[in-house]
Amino acid sequence: MSNFQPLPEHKFTFGLWTVGSVGRDPFGGPVRDPKSSADLVRLLGEVGAYGVNYHDSDLIPVDATPAEAAAIKKDFRKALDETGLVVPMATTDLFRDAVFKDGAFTSNDPKVRAYALQKTMKAMDLGVEFGAKVYVFWGGREGTESDATKNPVEAGKRFREALNFLCGYAKDQKYDLKFALEPKPNEPRGDIYLATVGHALAFINTLDHPEMVGVNPEVAHETMAGLNFLHGVAQAWDAGKLFHIDLNDQNPSRYDQDFRFGAVNPKNAFLLVKFLEDVKYNGSRHFDAHAYRTEDYEGVKDFARGCMRTYLILKEKAARWNADPDIQALVAEINADDGSLAPLTGAYSTEKAAALKSRDLQPASLALRGLPYERLDQLTIEVLLGVR
Amino acid sequence: MSNFQPLPEHKFTFGLWTVGSVGRDPFGGPVRDPKSSADLVRLLGEVGAYGVNYHDSDLIPVDATPAEAAAIKKDFRKALDETGLVVPMATTDLFRDAVFKDGAFTSNDPKVRAYALQKTMKAMDLGVEFGAKVYVFWGGREGTESDATKNPVEAGKRFREALNFLCGYAKDQKYDLKFALEPKPNEPRGDIYLATVGHALAFINTLDHPEMVGVNPEVAHETMAGLNFLHGVAQAWDAGKLFHIDLNDQNPSRYDQDFRFGAVNPKNAFLLVKFLEDVKYNGSRHFDAHAYRTEDYEGVKDFARGCMRTYLILKEKAARWNADPDIQALVAEINADDGSLAPLTGAYSTEKAAALKSRDLQPASLALRGLPYERLDQLTIEVLLGVR
Amino acid sequence: MSNFQPLPEHKFTFGLWTVGSVGRDPFGGPVRDPKSSADLVRLLGEVGAYGVNYHDSDLIPVDATPAEAAAIKKDFRKALDETGLVVPMATTDLFRDAVFKDGAFTSNDPKVRAYALQKTMKAMDLGVEFGAKVYVFWGGREGTESDATKNPVEAGKRFREALNFLCGYAKDQKYDLKFALEPKPNEPRGDIYLATVGHALAFINTLDHPEMVGVNPEVAHETMAGLNFLHGVAQAWDAGKLFHIDLNDQNPSRYDQDFRFGAVNPKNAFLLVKFLEDVKYNGSRHFDAHAYRTEDYEGVKDFARGCMRTYLILKEKAARWNADPDIQALVAEINADDGSLAPLTGAYSTEKAAALKSRDLQPASLALRGLPYERLDQLTIEVLLGVR
Amino acid sequence: MSNFQPLPEHKFTFGLWTVGSVGRDPFGGPVRDPKSSADLVRLLGEVGAYGVNYHDSDLIPVDATPAEAAAIKKDFRKALDETGLVVPMATTDLFRDAVFKDGAFTSNDPKVRAYALQKTMKAMDLGVEFGAKVYVFWGGREGTESDATKNPVEAGKRFREALNFLCGYAKDQKYDLKFALEPKPNEPRGDIYLATVGHALAFINTLDHPEMVGVNPEVAHETMAGLNFLHGVAQAWDAGKLFHIDLNDQNPSRYDQDFRFGAVNPKNAFLLVKFLEDVKYNGSRHFDAHAYRTEDYEGVKDFARGCMRTYLILKEKAARWNADPDIQALVAEINADDGSLAPLTGAYSTEKAAALKSRDLQPASLALRGLPYERLDQLTIEVLLGVR
Repeated sequence: MSNFQPLPEHKFTFGLWTVGSVGRDPFGGPVRDPKSSADLVRLLGEVGAYGVNYHDSDLIPVDATPAEAAAIKKDFRKALDETGLVVPMATTDLFRDAVFKDGAFTSNDPKVRAYALQKTMKAMDLGVEFGAKVYVFWGGREGTESDATKNPVEAGKRFREALNFLCGYAKDQKYDLKFALEPKPNEPRGDIYLATVGHALAFINTLDHPEMVGVNPEVAHETMAGLNFLHGVAQAWDAGKLFHIDLNDQNPSRYDQDFRFGAVNPKNAFLLVKFLEDVKYNGSRHFDAHAYRTEDYEGVKDFARGCMRTYLILKEKAARWNADPDIQALVAEINADDGSLAPLTGAYSTEKAAALKSRDLQPASLALRGLPYERLDQLTIEVLLGVR
Repeated sequence: MSNFQPLPEHKFTFGLWTVGSVGRDPFGGPVRDPKSSADLVRLLGEVGAYGVNYHDSDLIPVDATPAEAAAIKKDFRKALDETGLVVPMATTDLFRDAVFKDGAFTSNDPKVRAYALQKTMKAMDLGVEFGAKVYVFWGGREGTESDATKNPVEAGKRFREALNFLCGYAKDQKYDLKFALEPKPNEPRGDIYLATVGHALAFINTLDHPEMVGVNPEVAHETMAGLNFLHGVAQAWDAGKLFHIDLNDQNPSRYDQDFRFGAVNPKNAFLLVKFLEDVKYNGSRHFDAHAYRTEDYEGVKDFARGCMRTYLILKEKAARWNADPDIQALVAEINADDGSLAPLTGAYSTEKAAALKSRDLQPASLALRGLPYERLDQLTIEVLLGVR
Repeated sequence: MSNFQPLPEHKFTFGLWTVGSVGRDPFGGPVRDPKSSADLVRLLGEVGAYGVNYHDSDLIPVDATPAEAAAIKKDFRKALDETGLVVPMATTDLFRDAVFKDGAFTSNDPKVRAYALQKTMKAMDLGVEFGAKVYVFWGGREGTESDATKNPVEAGKRFREALNFLCGYAKDQKYDLKFALEPKPNEPRGDIYLATVGHALAFINTLDHPEMVGVNPEVAHETMAGLNFLHGVAQAWDAGKLFHIDLNDQNPSRYDQDFRFGAVNPKNAFLLVKFLEDVKYNGSRHFDAHAYRTEDYEGVKDFARGCMRTYLILKEKAARWNADPDIQALVAEINADDGSLAPLTGAYSTEKAAALKSRDLQPASLALRGLPYERLDQLTIEVLLGVR
Repeated sequence: MSNFQPLPEHKFTFGLWTVGSVGRDPFGGPVRDPKSSADLVRLLGEVGAYGVNYHDSDLIPVDATPAEAAAIKKDFRKALDETGLVVPMATTDLFRDAVFKDGAFTSNDPKVRAYALQKTMKAMDLGVEFGAKVYVFWGGREGTESDATKNPVEAGKRFREALNFLCGYAKDQKYDLKFALEPKPNEPRGDIYLATVGHALAFINTLDHPEMVGVNPEVAHETMAGLNFLHGVAQAWDAGKLFHIDLNDQNPSRYDQDFRFGAVNPKNAFLLVKFLEDVKYNGSRHFDAHAYRTEDYEGVKDFARGCMRTYLILKEKAARWNADPDIQALVAEINADDGSLAPLTGAYSTEKAAALKSRDLQPASLALRGLPYERLDQLTIEVLLGVR
């Protein structure tokens, strides 16, 4: 059994806002004192993370003077140098300030939309300054409480126009940046546009530069909609659009919980890790989660270590699953193909269609075949529970 | 006040399986005797529907002899002629038979996948025979109970291959058919692939002939995932992909209820009708619902009449909303644009970006503006409730 | 048509925290400046409310000096006198402060549990001082994120001990107070104890003084669990335990939205208002909701007026439903009873059981009876939409 | 590591309807041939179950002649004798037949209500004949699709009257039977009365003989409402009402899935098993689940074996958790009590209240204490995953 220690090759990253969360929630105030960005980097270094990500305002408060900003950046850089952490991703805070109460890129107010563009350009500059290669867009305020108040087609046009503008800016600046849209179904808006990985993928196809835009699926966000997260990730992967991923955990159909990775449903976490490792996903494993509100900063470290440790435990189990002869025999049996129908299927031809239409495929007989999925799933559970 | 009578121009359609439902559910047997397809057409004619849609096996039982099939088709044609009903849409039953227990196009068994292709080609022939112009694909069995049992990327490839083959077939046959994919998140499978309108739209972009494939969103299916149905429909419309629509009603986050249109949440139904009418959606208003299990066939007629009547009531209310001066004043206020920022936004240019970055947009001042959304939503409720 | 103006007899109340919400949420800061309690009372007076309710800390900040507290109370009393508003209910804030991060009465820390008792006794004193007759307990922090961290049976014992102690205090002080437990399934804790109206009702039966404890069901809280709110309210009413009610609106299976009453699902709101009026519920109609974050204080007034106005519109519709002859004919038909089986049912006797067991009840024939529920529900929708 | 073999002392039971499910669902027909009750008993004997439970109509078809019934009972008895299986529980099918389309005990039709009583008395006789000591009531049809069609208070009265009658019957017959109510929120009705464990517990308190009535909580049913199952079970246990339990698994906020125990969320399953073992629950561990529709009868056996095996694996892990010194040290730390406040809390007294009100409890200082819940939960996950 390995020691499950995080290494740079695992590409484990955290946001400043994750380990830096002071524990405020809709019904309560902070439970932890804030730490500086530099101290948060040191905390992440201590627990073994590879990288750190930020929103513009995580790093530089909106009201910082140029001198203050310069000092913060210097300290942050120093902490990065000390710890060896990198900054693979950056993003814009387009949700905390009251100006965004009706959205940023989709606000009904054209001045707010312009301000959102301006703030994002500056935040992109700040991200690139520290080496970010992926730029995330979470449109947390892009939505409605009442659809009487905003036309959803118009909102889509505004969103598209903004992303096209910002793609233009990134190209113009010669930034080596990919964009990743992060979907979420609701909270803090009643309903958020681009609710799921699917909606985001579809939307990308309507942009001027679809090739530079992908998605940043988050476990909690798809799970809030009760959707199968793995299916969404697989569709994004198949489309070549899995540019980033946000790992955490969540009970379905609830408020956004952002729990420690694997804390709610370790089976789902296992199948996800297995997928990412099997397809050789090469991006950040970003933990967009925060410690329970019960914790002090020792607990925050326990939380961060737990995210990475659970990932590595599950990664080892994925390898075990792949190596288990009983499991592999079942997988082979399930997917058996004698090749007899290959000549009639695949790419369409008139001949194949005619042949296939007239072939007696004996569905009643096919229906009789038992598929050992209970057995395969039980073996999977047993690998997960460590009893095989 | 109008009399809310359905007319052909309203394009109200029902499936044979909707008014023909005998009321079986997971915990109970039938409560109504089955009716012939011809009698169901007559029932639909009596209540004022415009069209009728079917699965292949709704019309012709899987085990019908050629002579039986011919007789059924003759009777069905006769009933269409008598009533004036048309057949705008057809689809394939790829879910009832045990052969599809692990999926049709995505089954792990290549023989089942081939049979699904065969059955669909024949069903397309049958649909076209009666004039269908839209062909719906609901992949109700395309999914898993355990993701240990099927690779989701592989499943996507199989699904794509099947749709490409069938697009090829339709083109080869010179069928005047558009395809419409109908998403659903779960039930009868634990999780179904292409869970939402978004996932389906994204998937279409990966097909060989995306131009002939759109979506068939269903109120109940998106609502089962707790998603905002209107947002999905608007995204499909914006993409030019709203080829069909399934109207019914549903409590969120439950089993598939398929209730009478507007029966659960009339506000959502109103906003949907308003959208369809405002954008001048020109396709079928298809009611994919069924009567409560408490009903006899008089109740089935009440159910069908209620679907159409509620749609027409809400359509009148949409016109009223559009004509209400207080509401329109609020809409204008909300979307006010003095044009001052237009020169800095829209299509990207280096100059615009530079000018926009340096402009003082005074976000603190913008944030102070109150937006009268409570008032607008309350007026909307009052239009809905008929008190203005 | 009436003018739907709120009157004292309607018993419409709001919490200080509702119209006083500054719009903070998990992802954003305040959007409105705070108002003093006295000013909030004046705002409520302006819109026509009957009463105002508060948490101890809504009225007196935790860190107020005795002199400050006295001044606040004097101002508050003056505003009540000016406006004629009453204080029917009070409650304790056992959730905002970090000390309650693991719960109040169920915290694992006995010192926190003692502090919660102390704070509640003082808050009861403050409530009674202004005339409150109902004292609400919302245990928002009584729960867990991980059930490895707290024993749920032990937590129940702690909760019971606290309520027993406080019942003792109220009786000892000769306070004319009834307690009302307010259930909620989750948020801000991962899972909250006493998740629903049912769980709270059951728990009351285990207390030392169950007669003085009832429930305060909230639309949003039951709806977050996807439950039928009306069914829970009816069970509480049947048990004589509907001591208070929190009206608002909510999409199922989401974060706690606390929208304007009737804003999400007017049909559910109608059935609820109809129930409360039909049974002659005599308590406060308390709106535990807040304005959208888009609003300024004019919008807050629109919100508050909308809550009351929608209630009154629906109350008029309830009377209309009760007076509609077609509807009443259906209700009579549905509940028809020829009395023939009365001798065999009701209170048990050996003779009835024997006679009933041997009676031929002809279930196959009973099953044939069609029940016109589609028709009745459609007429209900039409009353709601104002077209009959 | 043990071999996880089921033994009679584990009290693992299955319903005839579980391993006997032919795989019908709302969108598809059967996938397995039906087996006789006797053969199902033999199948359960083969996999190592302790007992078998049934609905009246599982054992004796509604339309069986007396001779057929006698023959079936003889065969069933023989199979019990052969295998050593016992019948700890029986129940009534009050949902499959069309007569129950609007409910059984709460139907609007008094004749249907009488028939439900009659059928239940006969089914109780049949249950007692084979030794059942627990009699389950699942009111699957007791509910509504539209609350315009049934008065929920009236429905509660009818439900109560029926249960009182049947308690009378059981006592009159001197049956050694306890009743267990099985709650469910919805499906097959739009909303079912007594939606959760809490609602059922509360309802029991309104019966004439509450001491003979408890609950039968089911994992899937509470989970469908997104509720924490363990909390409901703990409340039932605390009330002395955990008379039976239905084990299976389910994704939250979906159709009723009835998956193999532990198949969806093994962490929840672990915490449940740990609770049942810790409190020394002595009743049946009843698996109310069925095999995936992909399975033949070999797969059904895999399913049944998997339910029991996973329970035993988790039971061993529960013992390991209890024996883990790091975990126990955290549990002790979390619940530390220096006893200093014991004199001021517990049973109420005037003196305690006065002393407690005046004590300086220093909440700001208490709030600073970090609680190592992340660490404890992570260790729990690691026990579950078999890495400690």
